[in-house]
Amino acid sequence: MQIIGEKINGTRKRVGQAILDRDVNYIQNLARRQAEAGSTWLDVNAGTQPSREPDDLVWLIDTVQAVTETPLSLDSANPAALAAAIKAVNKTPLINSISGESKRLTEVLPLVAEHGCPVIALAMDDRGIPEDSATRVEVIHKVLAATRAAGIPDTRVYVDALAMTISTNTQSALIFCDTIRTIHAAYPEVHFTVGLSNISFGLPARSYINRAFLTLALAAGLDCAILDPLDQELRAALLAAELVLGRDNYCLKYVRAYRAGMFDKAAN
Amino acid sequence: MQIIGEKINGTRKRVGQAILDRDVNYIQNLARRQAEAGSTWLDVNAGTQPSREPDDLVWLIDTVQAVTETPLSLDSANPAALAAAIKAVNKTPLINSISGESKRLTEVLPLVAEHGCPVIALAMDDRGIPEDSATRVEVIHKVLAATRAAGIPDTRVYVDALAMTISTNTQSALIFCDTIRTIHAAYPEVHFTVGLSNISFGLPARSYINRAFLTLALAAGLDCAILDPLDQELRAALLAAELVLGRDNYCLKYVRAYRAGMFDKAAN
Repeated sequence: MQIIGEKINGTRKRVGQAILDRDVNYIQNLARRQAEAGSTWLDVNAGTQPSREPDDLVWLIDTVQAVTETPLSLDSANPAALAAAIKAVNKTPLINSISGESKRLTEVLPLVAEHGCPVIALAMDDRGIPEDSATRVEVIHKVLAATRAAGIPDTRVYVDALAMTISTNTQSALIFCDTIRTIHAAYPEVHFTVGLSNISFGLPARSYINRAFLTLALAAGLDCAILDPLDQELRAALLAAELVLGRDNYCLKYVRAYRAGMFDKAAN
Repeated sequence: MQIIGEKINGTRKRVGQAILDRDVNYIQNLARRQAEAGSTWLDVNAGTQPSREPDDLVWLIDTVQAVTETPLSLDSANPAALAAAIKAVNKTPLINSISGESKRLTEVLPLVAEHGCPVIALAMDDRGIPEDSATRVEVIHKVLAATRAAGIPDTRVYVDALAMTISTNTQSALIFCDTIRTIHAAYPEVHFTVGLSNISFGLPARSYINRAFLTLALAAGLDCAILDPLDQELRAALLAAELVLGRDNYCLKYVRAYRAGMFDKAAN
């Protein structure tokens, strides 16, 4: 399971303020803690106006790279910001994201191909996010045809089938899982990621929903997620889910995490 | 989801002592709290020597029935104890359990049929508990042939595909889920139950494992479980699992449980 640490996101009020204030300590603290918690990548999203986004994103990258070697996930829909960001990184970054939207395919996909980056591919296009699984599958087929045509191997593509909140459609998690099952069968080398907490948007006691969804999505083929790596209960639930899914040989990871105090909050 | 409250079980030391001491308050407290927590049935297991088990089980039944109208699950492999118990109950009980073992089929199944009881059917026979899913399925076919021959409708049978601990076989949860998926496809009216906590026997931080397993098993078709209804985290996880599985219209059950304080321990 690969984890993209979600916390350095300028659309969150406190982080947005830290970016405007050039608050190095605040950002570096988030970077360090997420890296120590085992993130595979750290997402960096400046979340600012397009005109200043390239500068803000490069500042974020420089700030984060000063304290951690964990590679970055460059989170922007702005080709100019991505182009500037790719020049600033020390290690090959994950690009977050492309989709079936023509603007992303023409302006972002070439950057991904040129720099040999792994990339998140969203199940949406110019018509928006399809309600049903069949149309999402169709959109993903189109995006994967484009990544293949650009010479990007399937092993570098992280399909995000898009978890919409359960509060507006109780079938959301099932639609998500059906979509990745279908795509997994057709493209066995593609990875699957998700912005985990979207599933519970607008609902109370969100963490329980996120954990249950993570378990179902892992069973369906998820092998990566954008989430809060500092949420100890979520990481414990992830370890337990991998254990019951038969992916933890001799229960070693689980027992080691227990000995390291990961479950200290848990009732036994 | 139907819940069989597991706590009145004489094989647990404190409960066994209460049975020997005829400690009415201790047993009635367990009965009341489990009933209030929403148990569909209360399991009663005397857990004593065969010679005294009929008396002990009838005492348990009388004691429990004095404080709750929740029907009972008569948990015994002893035909004499079950026969005495069936005469003592106020409401039709669940019988826990039959299996493919010849002794249970010849001595317990007739009681089940005669009294029109729902019954738990274990995926084991005289050879023991099969390791693999295919052999468990074969055993369950045999048991269901016997229940049908005895005139018991499938709607009254609760198949327990037997969760063995992950600590000795990391594939246990997957074997369980595969088995109930296969049986569900062949017998759409049969119910599925499980002794939930067996999955985590011998491991630390068991509650996380139980919750992850419950989520997977619900997705596979589980609609009943023997568990601790007083475990608030487990019940919260159950509500969340039903929500993400699209079984909570308008999220009503989840939001109501939140308003009733069910998630007070949860991080949001």
